[in-house]
Amino acid sequence: MNTPHMPAHAGLPPDFAAAMQARFGARFSLAEAVRAHHGHDESHFPDALPDAVVWPRSTAEVVAIIDCCRAYRVPVIAFGVGSSLEGHVLATHGGISVDFAEMNSIVAVHAEDMDVAVQPGVTRKQLNAALHGTGLFFPIDPGADASLGGMAATRASGTNAVRYGTMRENVLGLEAVLANGRVMRTGGRARKSSSGYDLTRCLVGSEGTLALFTELTLRLHPLPEAVSAAVCAFPDVDSAVHTVIQTIQLGVPVARIELLDALTVTAINRYSKTSLEEAPTLFFEFHGSAPGVAEQARAVQALANEHGGRHFEWATHPEDRTRLWQARHDTYFACLNLRPGCRGITTDVCVPISRLADCIAGTREDIAATGLTAPIVGHVGDGNFHTLILVDPGNRDEIARAEVLNRRIVERALSMDGTCTGEHGIGLGKQDFLLAEHGDTAVDAMWALKRALDPENLLNPGKVLQAR
Amino acid sequence: MNTPHMPAHAGLPPDFAAAMQARFGARFSLAEAVRAHHGHDESHFPDALPDAVVWPRSTAEVVAIIDCCRAYRVPVIAFGVGSSLEGHVLATHGGISVDFAEMNSIVAVHAEDMDVAVQPGVTRKQLNAALHGTGLFFPIDPGADASLGGMAATRASGTNAVRYGTMRENVLGLEAVLANGRVMRTGGRARKSSSGYDLTRCLVGSEGTLALFTELTLRLHPLPEAVSAAVCAFPDVDSAVHTVIQTIQLGVPVARIELLDALTVTAINRYSKTSLEEAPTLFFEFHGSAPGVAEQARAVQALANEHGGRHFEWATHPEDRTRLWQARHDTYFACLNLRPGCRGITTDVCVPISRLADCIAGTREDIAATGLTAPIVGHVGDGNFHTLILVDPGNRDEIARAEVLNRRIVERALSMDGTCTGEHGIGLGKQDFLLAEHGDTAVDAMWALKRALDPENLLNPGKVLQAR
Repeated sequence: MNTPHMPAHAGLPPDFAAAMQARFGARFSLAEAVRAHHGHDESHFPDALPDAVVWPRSTAEVVAIIDCCRAYRVPVIAFGVGSSLEGHVLATHGGISVDFAEMNSIVAVHAEDMDVAVQPGVTRKQLNAALHGTGLFFPIDPGADASLGGMAATRASGTNAVRYGTMRENVLGLEAVLANGRVMRTGGRARKSSSGYDLTRCLVGSEGTLALFTELTLRLHPLPEAVSAAVCAFPDVDSAVHTVIQTIQLGVPVARIELLDALTVTAINRYSKTSLEEAPTLFFEFHGSAPGVAEQARAVQALANEHGGRHFEWATHPEDRTRLWQARHDTYFACLNLRPGCRGITTDVCVPISRLADCIAGTREDIAATGLTAPIVGHVGDGNFHTLILVDPGNRDEIARAEVLNRRIVERALSMDGTCTGEHGIGLGKQDFLLAEHGDTAVDAMWALKRALDPENLLNPGKVLQAR
Repeated sequence: MNTPHMPAHAGLPPDFAAAMQARFGARFSLAEAVRAHHGHDESHFPDALPDAVVWPRSTAEVVAIIDCCRAYRVPVIAFGVGSSLEGHVLATHGGISVDFAEMNSIVAVHAEDMDVAVQPGVTRKQLNAALHGTGLFFPIDPGADASLGGMAATRASGTNAVRYGTMRENVLGLEAVLANGRVMRTGGRARKSSSGYDLTRCLVGSEGTLALFTELTLRLHPLPEAVSAAVCAFPDVDSAVHTVIQTIQLGVPVARIELLDALTVTAINRYSKTSLEEAPTLFFEFHGSAPGVAEQARAVQALANEHGGRHFEWATHPEDRTRLWQARHDTYFACLNLRPGCRGITTDVCVPISRLADCIAGTREDIAATGLTAPIVGHVGDGNFHTLILVDPGNRDEIARAEVLNRRIVERALSMDGTCTGEHGIGLGKQDFLLAEHGDTAVDAMWALKRALDPENLLNPGKVLQAR
């Protein structure tokens, strides 16, 4: 296995900048502030500024960018809204950031087929606003109002995945520009197909390293006739987790089940001015017909009671539900706020549901042993949870201990047949975990795909796959 | 784009046969009758016998086979039960057939996580028998009692896909032997993952051309608490199809909706000794809680009534349901039986649900214009339907007319944003449709993946991708 070409960062060739300026005018920028915005994400990795930023408005313009970058061997980094937690947008090898903010049209809503074609810069909230009145919605909800292109690139999921799946299941097709500048259409609008290799799924989760997405066809879902939410506090984390495990094993089709440990609830109460009991807590949401929702909620309440759950509180009013889920979505910032000036190192393991209680219990012991502050929150219906390890970015010892903790959490999850990342992606920081999880042969096969589609390592170099 | 190496068929090198015989003894066969069995499937393509057949019993033996085949440049064709409808197992370039019948163990049932690990030779009925008592089942049901390895290789689906998805959604991970002889593990048991490229989905649907599967991890589903089935005859096909479209658009979570045209019902009555009304008919199955199933059935019955549906008959007894679905599964043979001695050319288009009525109506007009006999049956909840064009294998003119009809049906489906194959795969006969459906760039990308993983074109050469 040859070591792939990893571009050294040598700044932009002057002719390249001139060519881009001639073509894109003010939509090509070398300004420091612009580059700083695009060389930063929500991860704990140090900023790494691109050499320039460009805002294409069409597929043809994306082709022009790729052609120019290939001619001058300039790396290309796709940029959505910068909400990545794994350093995906950081220009660690220089190059230009392709910001899809101006490719944000909804191309076609096919309500009768429950699918939609969008440009990659459309955000999930923008899409759902545009679907208003159709009786349909796009359920994937990673918390941040991420761009759909970015969500497809990281195979995002979030709170609703337990019922509606992830981007893997909900991207039906793509238009993508390859590293050779050719425009490819993958997948289609039929609900199923056995027509050739599954290029759509090859590209979903490829983190900008195999192609740039210029259009996505997404699956929509009928808005549920009835929705209700509930909050339930538990005497300990283990009781909450066992309630989740039984809910899933019984096949109750819950739409969301989220775990928040006591520290997270404290953080939320401070940040979002809520008055939740500061104990391990589950947030639930049920979707279905009115009797179906009531049936699901009764089943879950009975399980929660068996495990000592108390205050099974209902939120049937839309505004109460919105407040609840907004608080859930703000946990990242609420937890960072527990320690002003800190940065967060986020873990993202996901394990088979039967191992979830052991995995979380072991993780809690590890956190306690380190003395670090690390609230736990998770999409536990999928077996996925996060710890947000709060570190002082100036304290090397603390960062080193956080990294040891991170590694221990991942190793435990892998030993339980789990994955190092349920939804955030590999990015910069999990490349050795990728190898530990999948093994040499699989990672070599991933490199083979990368070389087949991007032989010059032009697209987001240094992400997903480690130079070997 | 270089033309790939397509092996010429020159028979087996004598040293190769000797090496295989030394290693596999009686599990390596050169016998004509054995080769004939493995050079034949359920398609209309002429038989093409492999040069030999081998029955591995372990992953290590599959590695040994691949290593030997690579050394002597002998093509390798995976064989399940031979139920392919697209010529997948035919040895059109010679080589050896690797029959997985002796790799048919259920490796591990993880009932609490609703997944199972199986060897590729396990059939779907065998798996469901083994799951008896766990409260779980594997829903994918293509009709034939196919091997799960073969079903993964063709991205199979069938009657339950409208509710439970296809092999794409239900294969969680694979162990596979690559053309270089290395053993790769893909995916895992976590319900979701963003860990690197989706190698599992790259391999599912690759029709034996990218790797040989030696173990599959499959998703299981809870057996529904209640099941009911119904049969409803309609005044015409269009009324039946509109009932389906509205059922899907309303989001009724039916488990199965199958369309049979009047000719198919006639064929079934003759073949399976049923006494169904010989009119366009829908078969339904509903899964859920007892009240949930009743609610679904009421909703569908109301829609059927609006479209002139009559005799909405119930089959609540398991034995009645079994008889009904057995009759449905026997349609292929029942229809062939309409014309003794004929062979069937099966079409397999799938379109967005809103186009289904137009697509079927146009197809019916085309059939009528040709004067051929071609019953229609379909997994219409997915927008997928088959015509079985019955041809006299000795009548060239008829075969030519059937091919024109086939092409017209596919072209119409593609013009409606559909796919040329919903579930049977590309195999030998749909390679030009693959190009028409996905375009040059996507097919070149498929070739790039093929070359990356199988540079010597050792694995099932001549299938899926056309030499270009």
